[in-house]
Amino acid sequence: MKINGKPYRTIWPHGETSVEVIDQTKLPHEFRTVMLRNVDDAARAIRQMIVRGAPLIGATAAYGIALAMREDASDEALDRAHDTLLETRPTAVNLRWALKRMCDALRNHPRDQRASLAWAEAAKIADEDVEVCRSIGEHGLKILQEAAAKKKPGETLNVLTHCNAGWLGCVDWGTALAPIYMAYDAGIPIHVWVDETRPRNQGASLTAFELGGHGVPHTIIADNAGGLLMTRGQVDLCIVGTDRVTANGDVANKIGTYLKALAAKDNNVPFHVALPSSTIDWQMAKGSDIPIEERSVDEVLKMTGRTPTGTVVTVDIAAPGSSAANPGFDVTPARLVTGFITERGTCEASEKGLKSLFPSE
Amino acid sequence: MKINGKPYRTIWPHGETSVEVIDQTKLPHEFRTVMLRNVDDAARAIRQMIVRGAPLIGATAAYGIALAMREDASDEALDRAHDTLLETRPTAVNLRWALKRMCDALRNHPRDQRASLAWAEAAKIADEDVEVCRSIGEHGLKILQEAAAKKKPGETLNVLTHCNAGWLGCVDWGTALAPIYMAYDAGIPIHVWVDETRPRNQGASLTAFELGGHGVPHTIIADNAGGLLMTRGQVDLCIVGTDRVTANGDVANKIGTYLKALAAKDNNVPFHVALPSSTIDWQMAKGSDIPIEERSVDEVLKMTGRTPTGTVVTVDIAAPGSSAANPGFDVTPARLVTGFITERGTCEASEKGLKSLFPSE
Repeated sequence: MKINGKPYRTIWPHGETSVEVIDQTKLPHEFRTVMLRNVDDAARAIRQMIVRGAPLIGATAAYGIALAMREDASDEALDRAHDTLLETRPTAVNLRWALKRMCDALRNHPRDQRASLAWAEAAKIADEDVEVCRSIGEHGLKILQEAAAKKKPGETLNVLTHCNAGWLGCVDWGTALAPIYMAYDAGIPIHVWVDETRPRNQGASLTAFELGGHGVPHTIIADNAGGLLMTRGQVDLCIVGTDRVTANGDVANKIGTYLKALAAKDNNVPFHVALPSSTIDWQMAKGSDIPIEERSVDEVLKMTGRTPTGTVVTVDIAAPGSSAANPGFDVTPARLVTGFITERGTCEASEKGLKSLFPSE
Repeated sequence: MKINGKPYRTIWPHGETSVEVIDQTKLPHEFRTVMLRNVDDAARAIRQMIVRGAPLIGATAAYGIALAMREDASDEALDRAHDTLLETRPTAVNLRWALKRMCDALRNHPRDQRASLAWAEAAKIADEDVEVCRSIGEHGLKILQEAAAKKKPGETLNVLTHCNAGWLGCVDWGTALAPIYMAYDAGIPIHVWVDETRPRNQGASLTAFELGGHGVPHTIIADNAGGLLMTRGQVDLCIVGTDRVTANGDVANKIGTYLKALAAKDNNVPFHVALPSSTIDWQMAKGSDIPIEERSVDEVLKMTGRTPTGTVVTVDIAAPGSSAANPGFDVTPARLVTGFITERGTCEASEKGLKSLFPSE
């Protein structure tokens, strides 16, 4: 997608020596990129959320393995890189998926070929993610077309999303936002309610930035507002991304997703979850088993923004002396999810639904 | 209650010439008071949320009438003051209640007595609010005692609250927080989950400030987090305040309350609403009729805090060029409310429940 008219991906290699990424901790205040030169750089980028979003975490981890192989292609180095990267974020399962795929692609190959193989495999993971997201977009577009067909001609279709499951969370296109971009490009009069998504504000800072960059009409709202909008009929449907879907169809996603799903159910608003199949954890039976990352309390107690003179500062916003808790994700039970949008099509949020699209898993 | 060990109310008169209030737009970063010298000062204080919280809005409006009577005690001046104050905030019904009570107390009295009568009536409204809140606290305390009795000895009782329904939102004590203060004083091991309450952060800035001032253990959380905490069994019950309860028991309160009530219902967590009877709108049949105030988008797009050097600054936090919507309240249907805590005792959230406590209404 484009930033100021120039096409970007979120991650791109420089030969077989380094990888460049957009620094998402600086958006929307500054556009900066960061060069990752070794596996520790990649791990740090994931941990510090310079890159974030389940698919992009996977792609970055894949390149992290490639960076590690460049320095040392031994089995031990591969194991070390795998473990270092795996422990960066506990909730998203794409990380584990991408690391396993890299290890499978390298383990039974001669050490002197591993670096090149690793770069090729990481590039393949990134390219495939773009195609997977494009496919999610096409399948999701049908849902938006059907919803738009139920409106009066010319009437705006209102979609609510939480956090950022756009191209910035993937390599390109996005998961939840891919159908929205395609609907906009297809001329559907679409408008997006963007949940601010405290405490890290990925909605107000990344989703709004993305949608604005593509010209998609959108309005930022406090995370508290979605329920009221749904009771008023101002939301036609919700689409969110996910960090892990368990075998029974439960959905881990950014903290607050569950609250919106409850409100959607209470108001008969369809609630869709868009995901690449790499987000499905077939080994985990149900959502309550998903480890929930507890993040720094500073994310709750502080806020970063631009002063009137354009300086970017971080300020303390809470009562002095009060502390905070900061769980990063919650679990939306499958019963609250209308359906999944995957690269293979749409399905019911259940084991049966998932198996219908992925029978060999 | 106390600030730095010194007892305060939120509003207090200086003779019959002016009224002093705590400037709640400056908390928790600075403690400042503001002097209100005429009805326009009072209206501005309410509109700009220098004072906020349904009971305190009512008390401030009452003093606003008294300030008006000081300058001009005519019927026309009374009507003007009434109308000026009434239009400051549309959702809270205590405002209308307090203004009606002031007008009823003044209308059939000689003009030369009106100023004194008005000061006396406003003081009575303020004093009564303190007693009403104390009574709410005592009735609510029983609920907390019962909940604590179900825990293991010494185990912490976890209460979640949204926005600020503490003494800062009233004249003293608070509504939702009064039972919490009394439980803490009674030695119940209580801990409060404080919803940040975007976009104005009344939780992180006012509720946390209040609870900290009294020594009550508490933890600030993003508004998104309460659902997860409830699914994990980390919330024993919720208590919130309200700006208007309709005759059928529907509850208008700070935006986001509805989402927490949905999560409480989904997890069998009791959800209580504390209110003085002046918050009940007997004339309005149901919650969907309540006017919802739409506030400035700057509350969503900007945030105020302290820099590391202690300067208080307001920063832009959202993507440049993106706009926002900012509805101030939502409506929680009576079916999601476990019960009301009023100055006359507790009751079911229904017309029948309300009538059982207030049969003559």
